[in-house]
Amino acid sequence: MRQRCGVVALDVGGTKIACGLVLTDGSVEYARTIPTSQDSPESVGEQIVALATEAIEHAPRDVVTAAVGLVVPGWVNHTNRTVWAPNVAGWDHIPLEQLLKERLPLPIALDSDRSGYVKGEAWLGVARGLNDIVFLAVGTGIGAGIMVDGRVLHGHDDLAGAVGWMALRPGFSELYARMGCFEAEASGAAVGRKGAERLATDPARAGEQWTAQRVVKAAVGGDSRAAEIIDEVVVYLGMGIANLVSTLDPEMVVLGGGLFRAGEYLAEKVRREFVRWCQPFAAQRVRIELSALGERAGLMGAARIAMDSFL
Amino acid sequence: MRQRCGVVALDVGGTKIACGLVLTDGSVEYARTIPTSQDSPESVGEQIVALATEAIEHAPRDVVTAAVGLVVPGWVNHTNRTVWAPNVAGWDHIPLEQLLKERLPLPIALDSDRSGYVKGEAWLGVARGLNDIVFLAVGTGIGAGIMVDGRVLHGHDDLAGAVGWMALRPGFSELYARMGCFEAEASGAAVGRKGAERLATDPARAGEQWTAQRVVKAAVGGDSRAAEIIDEVVVYLGMGIANLVSTLDPEMVVLGGGLFRAGEYLAEKVRREFVRWCQPFAAQRVRIELSALGERAGLMGAARIAMDSFL
Repeated sequence: MRQRCGVVALDVGGTKIACGLVLTDGSVEYARTIPTSQDSPESVGEQIVALATEAIEHAPRDVVTAAVGLVVPGWVNHTNRTVWAPNVAGWDHIPLEQLLKERLPLPIALDSDRSGYVKGEAWLGVARGLNDIVFLAVGTGIGAGIMVDGRVLHGHDDLAGAVGWMALRPGFSELYARMGCFEAEASGAAVGRKGAERLATDPARAGEQWTAQRVVKAAVGGDSRAAEIIDEVVVYLGMGIANLVSTLDPEMVVLGGGLFRAGEYLAEKVRREFVRWCQPFAAQRVRIELSALGERAGLMGAARIAMDSFL
Repeated sequence: MRQRCGVVALDVGGTKIACGLVLTDGSVEYARTIPTSQDSPESVGEQIVALATEAIEHAPRDVVTAAVGLVVPGWVNHTNRTVWAPNVAGWDHIPLEQLLKERLPLPIALDSDRSGYVKGEAWLGVARGLNDIVFLAVGTGIGAGIMVDGRVLHGHDDLAGAVGWMALRPGFSELYARMGCFEAEASGAAVGRKGAERLATDPARAGEQWTAQRVVKAAVGGDSRAAEIIDEVVVYLGMGIANLVSTLDPEMVVLGGGLFRAGEYLAEKVRREFVRWCQPFAAQRVRIELSALGERAGLMGAARIAMDSFL
């Protein structure tokens, strides 16, 4: 029997953990998603071990499972081998790789979710085959996966891509000190917050939950105050993308994360805005595209990271 | 006789051209600087050929001159092998490398001045031996040389580091469309312009030339309106540096270019400001230092580029 080769991939988020058995051709043989435990660092570790073990057990008989790849929503410090992830309970500089090594029978590769996104998209998504890419993830937070000459840029202390901290408006605010200016102004959470602040003042709407999706929907539906919020956010998104392009000169910027479920409606506005701010030659050359993998970018990236490390 | 090895290095600027015979140990055997011709692309090319030829002829008998390294203030497109430099007369996508090859007897390496600055500083300056560095050059314009894992980041189309285009203030202005927001707000030319606009309104000062150096001097001397200009510029410099650090996570940012002749007076203000905006872990770890090579960074970088290419 001809053997196929695969890895167990895990995309650990603050609210859910996705796990899959991913083969070298990009096909997924087995996949499962569960809610992230909110209890303790150990409990999330247990979930990872259980999911990975299950995936290994579910491998078809002709599949050799070679490694585990894991992406996490935070700082994977490759020097002291710890993980810091503010949205995972207790992941405060914990030795995650060591903890997992003791419990799993396969070699483990670990990286940040943003590294995963850009690797996934370069492998199987809209940036397939490209070498100079920025994946801008705009969800609850904002981060960027940066690929230069085919390699993920980690920075000197594995902190590269913390672009939620990009400074885009001179007037400093306390909100900026907590999460960074770009994130405070243009993340999915920021759009929801601006919606709650500015749209819920209408008594008929009091108590409504203003998520980003809802603000986008209101804007599309003709609500001029919602459209104003979107216009404001588009300026910041355009500025942030322009800064990444003027600094890094990639061939493509991939737009992902929850906010970009708004699709071409938002992408087209962002393209028009970014051109105003960007170095003109670079702006002409770069392509700004929506993620093709969507929510699967992290999982496929985690698989690719394991393959690049161990296959 | 024991042979030593060197290269001819040239740093071509909009106002002057520096040339040196630089040995592999970093010593300079011969150096000359002349004003840049403002006539035609050919005349600047002639100057380069004449300076390089002279340097080759002046080499001591025990020195083998192996190559020519050249940095220019613009876009060195390595794909179609042209140079675009708005401050050099007629350098509008010209095949500079080919023109020089026909006239000089040595192999030629060509790159942008910002690539030269970061290479020079990493070789012989304040960032000696470091691998993850940003050189922020703030002079007439603003640009950055970026080194990642010991290699200069060029970007997909050799446009990386065009950070004068960084967007730092949402209100768009026509000035931004011409030169980029960061450059319009915080370059040496911008400081001079702001001085002329805001300080020359005093009739006793009418007609005075307000260079950046002069504004700094006035601020140091207690002029509160000059100090206000510096404070405003420091905010933009702090934001721009924070953006580079949050995005790239370098181990050092080197401050160079004419504006930073103001030295620690300005550097210390910039350090205090950038921390407010930057990703906090990265801000703690990075060092922000003044260039050690100053005006020689480009020349030494040009030499290093030639050595890395041909030795």
